[in-house]
Amino acid sequence: MTVAAYYEGDRTIRIGAAEAVEPGAGEVQLKVSHCGICGTDLHIFHGAMDARVTMPLVMGHEMSASVHKLGAGVEELALGDKVVVMPLAPCGSCPACDAGHSHICHNLNFLGIDTPGAFQNYWTVPAYTLHRVPANLSLKHGALIEPLAVACHDVRLAGVKAGDQVVVLGGGPIGMLVALVAQQAGADVIVSEINAYRVELARELGLEAFNPGETDLIDLVMQRTKGTGADIVFEVSGSQAGADIMTELLRTRGLAVIVAIFAQKPKIDFFRFFWRELRLQGVRVYESQDFADAIALAATDALPLDELITDIRPLSALRSGFEDMEKGGRVMKILLEI
Amino acid sequence: MTVAAYYEGDRTIRIGAAEAVEPGAGEVQLKVSHCGICGTDLHIFHGAMDARVTMPLVMGHEMSASVHKLGAGVEELALGDKVVVMPLAPCGSCPACDAGHSHICHNLNFLGIDTPGAFQNYWTVPAYTLHRVPANLSLKHGALIEPLAVACHDVRLAGVKAGDQVVVLGGGPIGMLVALVAQQAGADVIVSEINAYRVELARELGLEAFNPGETDLIDLVMQRTKGTGADIVFEVSGSQAGADIMTELLRTRGLAVIVAIFAQKPKIDFFRFFWRELRLQGVRVYESQDFADAIALAATDALPLDELITDIRPLSALRSGFEDMEKGGRVMKILLEI
Repeated sequence: MTVAAYYEGDRTIRIGAAEAVEPGAGEVQLKVSHCGICGTDLHIFHGAMDARVTMPLVMGHEMSASVHKLGAGVEELALGDKVVVMPLAPCGSCPACDAGHSHICHNLNFLGIDTPGAFQNYWTVPAYTLHRVPANLSLKHGALIEPLAVACHDVRLAGVKAGDQVVVLGGGPIGMLVALVAQQAGADVIVSEINAYRVELARELGLEAFNPGETDLIDLVMQRTKGTGADIVFEVSGSQAGADIMTELLRTRGLAVIVAIFAQKPKIDFFRFFWRELRLQGVRVYESQDFADAIALAATDALPLDELITDIRPLSALRSGFEDMEKGGRVMKILLEI
Repeated sequence: MTVAAYYEGDRTIRIGAAEAVEPGAGEVQLKVSHCGICGTDLHIFHGAMDARVTMPLVMGHEMSASVHKLGAGVEELALGDKVVVMPLAPCGSCPACDAGHSHICHNLNFLGIDTPGAFQNYWTVPAYTLHRVPANLSLKHGALIEPLAVACHDVRLAGVKAGDQVVVLGGGPIGMLVALVAQQAGADVIVSEINAYRVELARELGLEAFNPGETDLIDLVMQRTKGTGADIVFEVSGSQAGADIMTELLRTRGLAVIVAIFAQKPKIDFFRFFWRELRLQGVRVYESQDFADAIALAATDALPLDELITDIRPLSALRSGFEDMEKGGRVMKILLEI
């Protein structure tokens, strides 16, 4: 049976019949294996993006699949290949695309938000979005490649190098992955997170983590760096508190990386930016290289990916997944087995 | 007669006798020629830095001089040499100094703020602060080297290159100099300034300038760049309005340079930083290289330095200079002839 989970507005998810779309020229029909629930999906479920999305919407973009049907002209893939989708379809002709930054195209079609996504058995996508994954990478872990590519992008643009003192503010799925990737790059990483479960989990993942309400984070970082401050702070909390402490933690000419999606404009200490010649960089999604890096890193088995997966549920449990994420209990990443 | 202008708190400037300080080992006694009045001096006059300064304070750091007496061990200078002072005395042992950023030393002694400055006939300074200026550079123009070095630093750290679309928000002395230096680097520069006199002056200096209350700056920049946006925006206004328009003007991955000293924390559109992967860099004072660049640039006669000088007055007119700056009329840079 071919089914999909449809978002119909007003916190409504309907599981219903779907029609597999025949792949056109340059397209591939995938048999979806696993698909994670992203914070953006939850945001859509809350109605916060109703003005952008077309309902009923099939969400889902953190996925793994096998190739099921090839459209005309697709020669670089074979039936049965294990793949993941980089869910970005750029316009190719805007100023961002012209400048080589098509991942943040001004007219970007984000698959699973602007057009149907992977919360369905069969998903047809442009062949150019596909990255093949090696045989030793499970399809379960494959569903973590998309968020891992975000982390690879953020760490790459930040220029994290061995020996850097890095602080990650916020220990949700993206914060954890940023911390793990920065640690793999040889950095000394501290995670700051107010949720006790997440602090505990971060430690189980092999990260140093603290609740800034219990540990004076500035003191800690200054002690660790002999008064110099952190080289790089990743702001993944999206909070005013994070934006405040970020500037205090950084060394002279240190770098703040804005990973979080800030719903409100925070007040920022521009005097401190001036005084210490601080730098800041916004980062968004990923480029092809980051997907390749994420796949290579996941395939080395160096990352504790299993520990990030809270639960694997059937597609019909999408709504329960959202509800558990809302409760904010002992939840990190929930995958759906499609 | 040896005199100095003393700030004594409570908007009080006293002109009184001074004692020329004999130069110790590694020091030089200067005969001060010209000294400009800086916005920071005005800030001190307003009492805003009373907690930092020691009164009575001799202010003044935008200066030119000739070498009058050499202390022991100073061999690289001769009596009568025309010089300017880079007024920074770093501690040499803090994390910023250790990292090679001694210009923003954590314990910086800024000459003319933290210790006596150039609003006096004879000024004794460490020899390492001196830069010799060429014979064809007048001592009047020499007094503009310090603010010009700020502009050289800002443009250098921003990486301005030929063909860049640059916007300078705020057309005070530093904004004007940043715009002129960026233009010399080959950039297409637009100055945004709300004061009609400054707009007029900017145009006389050969800059394109607009009042953003009369001209839609975003439209203008988007037309000029075919919808791409500015490569670099220098925020020199220190205002919320500047901080707001800055993020709107920038192209994807464009750079905001924070030159202004923000007294209040502005609200910043971090969503836009994320969405367009914008970058930001705080910049402060200058390094030795920037002083050398400023001197070389001023000596080429390529900059309209005379047009920036509103008036040259005697030292006793310091208070009237502050008052004219406060009125905000047709004033750009006032020099004192010491």
